[in-house]
Amino acid sequence: MKTITKMLIAGLALTLTAGAVSAADPEDAIDYRKGVFQVFKWNMGPLGAMAQGDIPFDREMAGQRAEQLDRVADLPWQGFIEGSDMGDTDAMPEVWMNREAFDEAASEFEQASARLAQLITEEASERDIRRQIGAVGQSCKACHDDFRE
Amino acid sequence: MKTITKMLIAGLALTLTAGAVSAADPEDAIDYRKGVFQVFKWNMGPLGAMAQGDIPFDREMAGQRAEQLDRVADLPWQGFIEGSDMGDTDAMPEVWMNREAFDEAASEFEQASARLAQLITEEASERDIRRQIGAVGQSCKACHDDFRE
Repeated sequence: MKTITKMLIAGLALTLTAGAVSAADPEDAIDYRKGVFQVFKWNMGPLGAMAQGDIPFDREMAGQRAEQLDRVADLPWQGFIEGSDMGDTDAMPEVWMNREAFDEAASEFEQASARLAQLITEEASERDIRRQIGAVGQSCKACHDDFRE
Repeated sequence: MKTITKMLIAGLALTLTAGAVSAADPEDAIDYRKGVFQVFKWNMGPLGAMAQGDIPFDREMAGQRAEQLDRVADLPWQGFIEGSDMGDTDAMPEVWMNREAFDEAASEFEQASARLAQLITEEASERDIRRQIGAVGQSCKACHDDFRE
């Protein structure tokens, strides 16, 4: 037990803020969901550029980014906790006032991302993949329109 | 084709910066990897607090966070691209000067996270899970010591 305690003191001091909380801190939740959205952007960036013809279509890169996008697609929503409507966030009050619609929009994005990853796995045509990237982009936009300042 | 183009213009304008690049922008790569580290922190926070006894051990929450940590464990490293050693980053030059050691440290973290997720899936004892959380924390620390300012 002593060894475990020492390991933890040494190992986790860096990772944890003092007095880690049982209920998440709203500011941590905001940082978290923004972090996930950065991961969305990293993956969606080249996909969108390929779909728009700004960069050549690259099936390997498309596959990697689509798989990664799909892998994290469900992660942000748990960061929209009670109390995290205030602070350094562009989230509109509608996220909390109309949670059912927000969850629906989130689910549509998840489905669009899953479908994109699936199309690439199935070696669909470039045309179908580019069209589905457009559908993912639409689902981003739909949620931003209704729930982001 | 026209429909696709319109969808893309409408849907992706928000997601993409103008003139999306074929090779990733170092600043985007820094934002991206910091985003993933926020996801690490969100998941590791309550795990560490449980291991330290700051919050009660909650098998369901531990399982959720460990699964999520494991799911994203391999994501940050692709953000340490050429040229992203400068700018708003705490990454030390050693990441690029000693890439083999960095990759090794990354791999040890991935293995520790995978083992943690596995232990919870296997319904291991609280003691073993807490010990493994400590091991994950150690692997965070080892990499921070050598590669982060």
